[in-house]
Amino acid sequence: MPDDTHNRPMDPPSFAAGTGHRHPLHQFPGRFTRPGTAPGDLTRPAESTGRPAALSLIDYDAGEIVEHQGCTLAEAREFFTSPHSTWLHVQGTPTEELLRAVGDAYGLHPLALEDVLHTGQRAKVEEYEEQLFTILGAPEPADHGMATAQLSLFLGDTWLVSFYSGQDDPFAAVRERLRNTGSRVRRLGVDYLYYSLIDTMIDHVFPQMEALGEQIEALELSVFDDPNRAALDDIHHLKRELVLLRRLLWPQRDALASLSRGDHVLIKKEARLYLRDCYDHAVHALDLVESYREMASSLLEVYLSSLSNRMNDVMKVLTIIATLFIPLSFIVGVYGMNFDRSAGPWNMPELGLRYGYPLLWLVMLAVVGVMLFYFRKKRWF
Amino acid sequence: MPDDTHNRPMDPPSFAAGTGHRHPLHQFPGRFTRPGTAPGDLTRPAESTGRPAALSLIDYDAGEIVEHQGCTLAEAREFFTSPHSTWLHVQGTPTEELLRAVGDAYGLHPLALEDVLHTGQRAKVEEYEEQLFTILGAPEPADHGMATAQLSLFLGDTWLVSFYSGQDDPFAAVRERLRNTGSRVRRLGVDYLYYSLIDTMIDHVFPQMEALGEQIEALELSVFDDPNRAALDDIHHLKRELVLLRRLLWPQRDALASLSRGDHVLIKKEARLYLRDCYDHAVHALDLVESYREMASSLLEVYLSSLSNRMNDVMKVLTIIATLFIPLSFIVGVYGMNFDRSAGPWNMPELGLRYGYPLLWLVMLAVVGVMLFYFRKKRWF
Amino acid sequence: MPDDTHNRPMDPPSFAAGTGHRHPLHQFPGRFTRPGTAPGDLTRPAESTGRPAALSLIDYDAGEIVEHQGCTLAEAREFFTSPHSTWLHVQGTPTEELLRAVGDAYGLHPLALEDVLHTGQRAKVEEYEEQLFTILGAPEPADHGMATAQLSLFLGDTWLVSFYSGQDDPFAAVRERLRNTGSRVRRLGVDYLYYSLIDTMIDHVFPQMEALGEQIEALELSVFDDPNRAALDDIHHLKRELVLLRRLLWPQRDALASLSRGDHVLIKKEARLYLRDCYDHAVHALDLVESYREMASSLLEVYLSSLSNRMNDVMKVLTIIATLFIPLSFIVGVYGMNFDRSAGPWNMPELGLRYGYPLLWLVMLAVVGVMLFYFRKKRWF
Amino acid sequence: MPDDTHNRPMDPPSFAAGTGHRHPLHQFPGRFTRPGTAPGDLTRPAESTGRPAALSLIDYDAGEIVEHQGCTLAEAREFFTSPHSTWLHVQGTPTEELLRAVGDAYGLHPLALEDVLHTGQRAKVEEYEEQLFTILGAPEPADHGMATAQLSLFLGDTWLVSFYSGQDDPFAAVRERLRNTGSRVRRLGVDYLYYSLIDTMIDHVFPQMEALGEQIEALELSVFDDPNRAALDDIHHLKRELVLLRRLLWPQRDALASLSRGDHVLIKKEARLYLRDCYDHAVHALDLVESYREMASSLLEVYLSSLSNRMNDVMKVLTIIATLFIPLSFIVGVYGMNFDRSAGPWNMPELGLRYGYPLLWLVMLAVVGVMLFYFRKKRWF
Amino acid sequence: MPDDTHNRPMDPPSFAAGTGHRHPLHQFPGRFTRPGTAPGDLTRPAESTGRPAALSLIDYDAGEIVEHQGCTLAEAREFFTSPHSTWLHVQGTPTEELLRAVGDAYGLHPLALEDVLHTGQRAKVEEYEEQLFTILGAPEPADHGMATAQLSLFLGDTWLVSFYSGQDDPFAAVRERLRNTGSRVRRLGVDYLYYSLIDTMIDHVFPQMEALGEQIEALELSVFDDPNRAALDDIHHLKRELVLLRRLLWPQRDALASLSRGDHVLIKKEARLYLRDCYDHAVHALDLVESYREMASSLLEVYLSSLSNRMNDVMKVLTIIATLFIPLSFIVGVYGMNFDRSAGPWNMPELGLRYGYPLLWLVMLAVVGVMLFYFRKKRWF
Repeated sequence: MPDDTHNRPMDPPSFAAGTGHRHPLHQFPGRFTRPGTAPGDLTRPAESTGRPAALSLIDYDAGEIVEHQGCTLAEAREFFTSPHSTWLHVQGTPTEELLRAVGDAYGLHPLALEDVLHTGQRAKVEEYEEQLFTILGAPEPADHGMATAQLSLFLGDTWLVSFYSGQDDPFAAVRERLRNTGSRVRRLGVDYLYYSLIDTMIDHVFPQMEALGEQIEALELSVFDDPNRAALDDIHHLKRELVLLRRLLWPQRDALASLSRGDHVLIKKEARLYLRDCYDHAVHALDLVESYREMASSLLEVYLSSLSNRMNDVMKVLTIIATLFIPLSFIVGVYGMNFDRSAGPWNMPELGLRYGYPLLWLVMLAVVGVMLFYFRKKRWF
Repeated sequence: MPDDTHNRPMDPPSFAAGTGHRHPLHQFPGRFTRPGTAPGDLTRPAESTGRPAALSLIDYDAGEIVEHQGCTLAEAREFFTSPHSTWLHVQGTPTEELLRAVGDAYGLHPLALEDVLHTGQRAKVEEYEEQLFTILGAPEPADHGMATAQLSLFLGDTWLVSFYSGQDDPFAAVRERLRNTGSRVRRLGVDYLYYSLIDTMIDHVFPQMEALGEQIEALELSVFDDPNRAALDDIHHLKRELVLLRRLLWPQRDALASLSRGDHVLIKKEARLYLRDCYDHAVHALDLVESYREMASSLLEVYLSSLSNRMNDVMKVLTIIATLFIPLSFIVGVYGMNFDRSAGPWNMPELGLRYGYPLLWLVMLAVVGVMLFYFRKKRWF
Repeated sequence: MPDDTHNRPMDPPSFAAGTGHRHPLHQFPGRFTRPGTAPGDLTRPAESTGRPAALSLIDYDAGEIVEHQGCTLAEAREFFTSPHSTWLHVQGTPTEELLRAVGDAYGLHPLALEDVLHTGQRAKVEEYEEQLFTILGAPEPADHGMATAQLSLFLGDTWLVSFYSGQDDPFAAVRERLRNTGSRVRRLGVDYLYYSLIDTMIDHVFPQMEALGEQIEALELSVFDDPNRAALDDIHHLKRELVLLRRLLWPQRDALASLSRGDHVLIKKEARLYLRDCYDHAVHALDLVESYREMASSLLEVYLSSLSNRMNDVMKVLTIIATLFIPLSFIVGVYGMNFDRSAGPWNMPELGLRYGYPLLWLVMLAVVGVMLFYFRKKRWF
Repeated sequence: MPDDTHNRPMDPPSFAAGTGHRHPLHQFPGRFTRPGTAPGDLTRPAESTGRPAALSLIDYDAGEIVEHQGCTLAEAREFFTSPHSTWLHVQGTPTEELLRAVGDAYGLHPLALEDVLHTGQRAKVEEYEEQLFTILGAPEPADHGMATAQLSLFLGDTWLVSFYSGQDDPFAAVRERLRNTGSRVRRLGVDYLYYSLIDTMIDHVFPQMEALGEQIEALELSVFDDPNRAALDDIHHLKRELVLLRRLLWPQRDALASLSRGDHVLIKKEARLYLRDCYDHAVHALDLVESYREMASSLLEVYLSSLSNRMNDVMKVLTIIATLFIPLSFIVGVYGMNFDRSAGPWNMPELGLRYGYPLLWLVMLAVVGVMLFYFRKKRWF
Repeated sequence: MPDDTHNRPMDPPSFAAGTGHRHPLHQFPGRFTRPGTAPGDLTRPAESTGRPAALSLIDYDAGEIVEHQGCTLAEAREFFTSPHSTWLHVQGTPTEELLRAVGDAYGLHPLALEDVLHTGQRAKVEEYEEQLFTILGAPEPADHGMATAQLSLFLGDTWLVSFYSGQDDPFAAVRERLRNTGSRVRRLGVDYLYYSLIDTMIDHVFPQMEALGEQIEALELSVFDDPNRAALDDIHHLKRELVLLRRLLWPQRDALASLSRGDHVLIKKEARLYLRDCYDHAVHALDLVESYREMASSLLEVYLSSLSNRMNDVMKVLTIIATLFIPLSFIVGVYGMNFDRSAGPWNMPELGLRYGYPLLWLVMLAVVGVMLFYFRKKRWF
C-alpha cells in the first residue's frame, strides 16, 4: 500500500511524524486503480519496493527434517513433489516469476495469487479444488502507530505455502518447535502446522491491544486533569486506530469460525480442536476492540464535559469579579460627579458630610457582604 | 478522480441553484408519481433528455469476433439469434422502441424493462425463466459531488444485454480484452463476460472512495486547526454523501452474495469463483463506507469540541482582562470622588498625602500581582 | 383516529394549526381501552364519525364487466356468489351491519373484521382457511402534516374485498384499467387485481417521501444560515414524522416479503413476480426513511454546532470590545483622580505636563495597537 | 420486590413522592441474595407483606358453571380432579402451603412454583411434561409512576391455574363473559380461557403507553418553551420508565411469538389464531416503546439545543449592552480627567470649547448609531 | 454486598497507585506475550503468586458420602476411579504438577488445562470426547471496584472437577446441601452438582448488580443537584465497569443457552430443566447490564445538560448585573466630566440646576425599572 506522505503540522509525535502515517484510512485491494483489466494480473505493484522476497523451506516428517533458509527457487523446486510434509515460506513481496512458479507447481488459482500480491485484502478462507486458501491480517508494530501485514496461506494435503508481507519473519518460534523431534507439530500433519502459523498471527494482535489499552488509561487521566487540544487529537486518533483494527479483525473472526466449524476436509479433527482455540482468541480480541471503542467514545464525552466544567469555572470567576466591582464602581462614580453644590442644598449634600467618606466605605463593604452571601448560597465557591 | 471543483465560500447556492445537485437526497423508481398506472410502462420519463442511446454489438466465440460500434437497431437485430456469444450494449437512455425490440427478441419481462428505463433502482439480481436480470449502481464522477449511474444486465445462455445510463462507456478495457484472441474472456462463455462487466462496475467505486478518504483527512486537519463554518458544511455534506453511498452499496453486496453463492444456473462454476472475488470487493467497499461514516461522526464531535476549546480560550482572555482591570478601575474611581476634604479630617485624607499617588500605584501593582499568581495557579496561561 | 386537539402556541404553521396534529404519537388498535372484552367486537368506535361507507362493486372476467358505483348492500349481495372475479370495495368506515353481512357471505374471521374496523393496525399478512387477509397502511396527505389510512384486503379464489379508511378513493386508475378490455388486470385473476391495489398503495408513499426530502433540504439551508428556534422545532417534528413513518413501513416490508416469497397458495406465480416488484418499492421506501433519519440526526448536530459557532462570534465581539476599552477606561480613570498635587511633587505630576494630554492619547493608541495585533495573531477577525 | 424508600428532594411530584418509587431500577428474581441455596425454595420472601392471597375457582363446561369467589383451599381441592374445565385464580402473594397444595395436585415443577413466588421474573413460556408454564408482566397504575405485577399461568389439558401478584383482580370482565352461556369462552376449552387472560394482560399495557405518550407531548411543549431543570428531570425519568418498560415487553413478545407459532400441543388451532392477535398487540406495544425512546432521545437533544439558544439570547443582550456602553464610558472618562489646562494649550482644550458638551453628545450618538447598524447587520435583533 | 469503600475526592490516585486496579481494561488469555509457543503450555504464569491451591474432595452417592477438606494430591488420587459420584474442587492457582496429575487421571485435553491456568478466558462450553469443559467468570467483590474470578469445570459421567481462581471458596452452601442425605443434589448425578455450581456462580452476579444499581441512583441525585467533577469521574467509571461486566456476561449467556438447549449428552433431562433456570438468570443479568448502560449514558447527557443549566444561571446573573449597572455608570460618568461651564451656557448646564442631583437619581431609577421590567418579561428571574 502506498504511504500517504502528507505531513500533518499539528500531529503529536506519537501518531505521525517524518514519514507520515503507516496506516492510511483507505486500504484497497491493489487492483482498484485499473477498473476493467483482466483478473489474475500478477504484475508487481510499482510502489512495492520493499526488500526482495526471501524463501525458506522445511521438509519434514515425524523422523526427519530438512531445512533450507534463504534457498533459491531452484532449490525449493526439488521439494515440490516431496512425499513428506513440506512448508515453503516466502518473506516479503514475491516476484511475478516466483508466484508463477509456485502457482504452477501446486496448481494455485490465479485470483488467489493476485490476492497474495496485492496486500490489504480482507481476511478470508476460500476453498479451491484440493486446497484451502487463507488470508489473515495482523497489525505490526511500526515506527509510528500501526502498520498491517498480510499472511497468505495455501494448504494442500502434504504441503503448506505461506507468504508474509511484513518486515520480519514472525515464525522463528514455530521453526524451533519443528526442529524439536517429538514435538506435536512434528508428529501431526501440515494442518497442524497451518494452525500453528495462524495461532502465531492471532497472538500478534494482543501486544498491540495492550498498548492501546494503556493509551486509553493514560488519556483517562489527562482528560480529567487537563482537557487540552492534544488530548482531543489523541482521542480522535485512537478512535481511528480502533476503527481500522476492527475492520481488520472482524473478517478474521468469521474466517476462523468457518475453520473451527469443520467445513473443510483438509483440516483433520485434531487440528480443528486447536483452531477452535484460535477462534476463541480472535473473538476475545474483537470483544476488546469493541470495549475500547466504547471507552474511547466515553472519553470524548468526558472531554466535552470537562471542557464545559472548565468554562463554568472561568465564567464563575468572571461573574464574581464583575458582580462585586461593577456596583461599587457605580457608587464611586456617583460621588465623582460635579454637580454644583452651591446651586442648591439637594445637590450632592453627601459630599459635605463630616463622615461622608468613611460612611461610603461602610456602604460598599455592606454591598460586598451581601454579594458574597448570595454567592455562597449559590455554592459558587 | 476529478476533484470537486466547486468553490464553496458558504456553499448554499450549489444546493438550490439552476442545475443543482446531481445527487438528490431522494431517488425514486421513476414511476412513483403516477400511483395506479399499469406496471411495465415503458414511456420515456420526460426529464431524461440525455443524449440518445448508442448501441454497440459484439458477436464472438473463441475463434472469431464481429464488432459493431454505434450500430442501428436493424443491424443489431441480425445477431439476436446468433449461435455465438452475443453482447449487446446500450449506452444512454434507450427509446421505448429500442426497449420493446430487444425485449421481444430475447423475451425480457416488462417489469425488468421498466426498471431499465426508470433508473435509480436498488441493486438486485432477479431470476426469470431463462434469464438472469441484474441491476447495479455506480457512483460517477460529476461536476459537483457524485452522480449515480445504473447498469442493467440481462444474461441468457448465449447472450448478454447491457444498458448503462451513465455519461461515458466504462467498458473500453473489457472490449479490448475481448478483441484479444486467447484471452480468458474470449475462451469462456457470456457468464464470464457478465462477470467482467460487474467487476468493472464494482471497481469504479474505489476511486470515489479514495477521494472521500482524502477529503476526510483534509477535514481532520482543518477541524483541529480552524473549526469554521465551512468545515461544518463540509462535514455535513460528507455525511450526506456517505449515507447515499451506503444506500447504493448495501443492496449491491446482497446481490453479489447471491451470485457468488451459486444460486443461479446460468452462471457456471468457473465464473462463480470470479464473482466471489467481486463479492469480496463489494464487501470491502462497504466496510470502508462504514469506517468513513464513523470517522465523519467522530469529526463532527471533534468539531464541536474544538469549538468549545476556542470558546474557552476566548472566555479566558476576557476573564483575565476584566478581572485585572475592573478592580483597578474601582480603585481609581474611589480617588476620583469629590468628597469635601474641608468638611472633616476623615474625608479622603489619602488625597492629601505627600506620597499618596505613588503609594496607590504600588497598591494597584500588588493587586495585579495577586491576580496573575491566581491565574497561573489555575493554569490559565 | 381521534384528533388530539391541543393547540400548540409555538408550532410553525406547516406542522400544526387550528385542528392540531393529524398524526398523534400513539396509535393503538382501537380496542385497547376496554381490556377484558371479547375479541371480535364489531361495535363502531364512538369517535369514528367520518362520512358513511360507500360501496362499489365490479364483477368481471376477460370478456365482460359489470360495475356498480355507490351500490347498496342489497345490490352487492347478488354478486357474492358470482362465478366471475368480483371486487367489492368499501370506502370509509363500515357499519357493523355491513361488516357482518360481508363477513357472513365470504366467511371472514371475526378477528380480521375487528381489525378492519379498528384502524391503526400494523401491516400484516395473515392466512385463514381459504382466504388471505392483508393490512397495509399509507400516509395520506392531510391539512397539516401526515395522516394515515388503512387498507384491508380479503383475497379469496375468485373474489377480493377491500376496505379503505382514508378520505378519497385512491383506486380510480385501477378501475380505469379494469374497464379496458384486454388489459393485463382484466385477463389475469383477482390475485393480480390484489397486486394492483397493493402497488397503488405502496406508490402513495413516495410523494410524501419527496415532500419530506424537500423539507430536509430546506432545513439544511436554514440551519447553516440562521439556526433559530423555528428550525429546531422543524427538525424535531421532522424526526417525529420519520419515526412514525418508519413504524408504518417496517411491518409493511415484512408483509410484502412474505407475499413475494410465495408462501401463499392463492397468489399464483405470475402475480408473485409483480409482488416482488412491490416488495422492492417497499424496501426502497424504507431505505429512504433510514437515510432521512440519519440526515435529520446530522441536521440536529449541525444545528447545535451552528449555535456554538454563533455564540463564539458573539463572544468574540464582546471580548474584543471589552478587552480594548476596559484598560483604556482604567487609564483615563487614573487621571480623573483628585490627588492633591500641592501636597507633594509626586502626586500626579503628569497632569501638569505641557503635553500630558496628547502624550496620554499616544499611550492609549499604542495599547489599542498591541491589542489589535494580538487579536489578529489569534485570528479573531 | 422491596421498595427503595430513599426520598428524593428534587423530584417533581409526578414521579416520586412520599412512599418513593414503585419501580426500582433493579428487579431481580427473589432468590439472588442467597447464592448456593437449593432451587425450588418456596419460603415466602420476608418483605412480601402484602394482603393475603385470595382464591377464586370457576368450574365450567358449555352447559354448567360453578363459581367460588374467595373460597378456601379445602373447597378448591374438591375440584382439582373435576372432568370439566377448571380455572383456579390466586390473587396476591400465595402462602407456601397453598403453593405446595396446588403444586402437588397438578404436579407443577418446583422451579416454576419458585418463579411464581419470587415475582419480577422475565416473561417466558416453558413446557413441562403435560403443562405449559407462562409468566407475563404488566405495568400497573400505581400512586406514583409505574409498578409491575406478574401473572403466572399453568395450563393443563382441562385446568388452568393463574397467580396474579398485583393489587386488584384484572379479570372481572373475563369472568363476566364466562358466566354468559354460549359465549365463545364457555364453548371453547381452557386454552381459549388461557388466551383470554393473556389478552387482558397485554391490553393493560396500552393505557400506560397512552399516559407516557401524553407526557412526551407535554414535555415537547415545555422543552421548547421553557427548558428548565424540572423538564430535564422529567425527560430523564421518562427515559428510565421506557428502559424498564422495554425490559418488560421484550421477553413478552418472544413468549407470545412462541405461543402463536404453534409450538405447544396444549393450545389448539383455534386458540392459536387468537394468540396470534395477542402477539400482534405485543409487537405493537414494543414498536411504540421504541418510538417513544427515540422521541425521548430527541427531546433531550432539543432540550440541550434550547438551552444553547437561551444562552445565546442572554449573551447577545449582554454583548449589546456592554458593546454600546463600554466605549461611551471610556469617552466620558476621558473628559473627567484633571489635566492642568493652564500648563499648556494642548491639555484638553475641548473642555473649554463653547459647544464642547453638546458636540460630545453628538459624537456619542454617532458611536451608538454605528454600533446599532453593525448589530442589525449581524441580525442580533 | 460490601460497598466499595474507597473514598474518591478526585480519584486519579486509585488508577495508578501501588496495587492499582483489580480489573484492568485489558484482560488477555495469559499466553499472549509469547506468540509462537506451543499450545498446551502449563507453566504457571510468573505473576500468579497467590496462595497455593487447596484441594477438597467429596465422593458420594445417595447413601454414603466421604469428604476430604484440604486433602493432598495423593489422597485425592485414590478416588479418581471411584464408582460413586466424585467432586474434586481446586481452590486457587493450581501447580503444573497438580494439573498434569488431574489431567492424566481423567484424560483432560491440554488446551483445556491451559485455559484453567491462564484465567481471564471468555465463558464457554466445549465438548471433548467424553467430557464437557466449561468456563464461567464471576465478578468478585474486591478492595477497589470489581475483580473477576474464573470457574473451570470438567464434567465426566461420574466425576466433576472444578477449579476456582478466586479468593474464597464460594461453594460452602452447596457442600452443606451435599451432606444432607436425601437432598436433591445427593439423589441426582454429578450433572445436577454441575448445575448447582453454575447456579451459585451466576447468582454471585446479582449482589454486584445491586451495588451498581444503587450507585446509579445515587449519581442521579448528585448529577441533578450538583454536577461537579467527581460526578463526571464516577459516571465514567460506572460506564467502564458496565463495559467490562457486559464483556463478562455476554459469552456466559451463550454458554448457558447451549447447555439448556440440550446439546450435550452428559447432561440428563432433569438437570437440563434446572440449567434452563440458570439461563434465565443469566439473561436477566444481561438485561440489567444493558438497562444500566442506557441509564449511565442518560446520566452523562443529564450531566452535560445540568452543566449548561448552571452556566445559564451564572450568565444570567452576570448579564443582569452588568446590564443594570453599565448604563448607570455611563450616566454618572457623564456628570463627572470637567467641561468648562464658564465657556458657554451649553456646557453641562445640568450641573447647575437646583434639583439636578435628585433629578438624576430619578432618571437612574427609571432606567433600572425599565431594565427589570424587560428581564421579568424575558423570565430571567
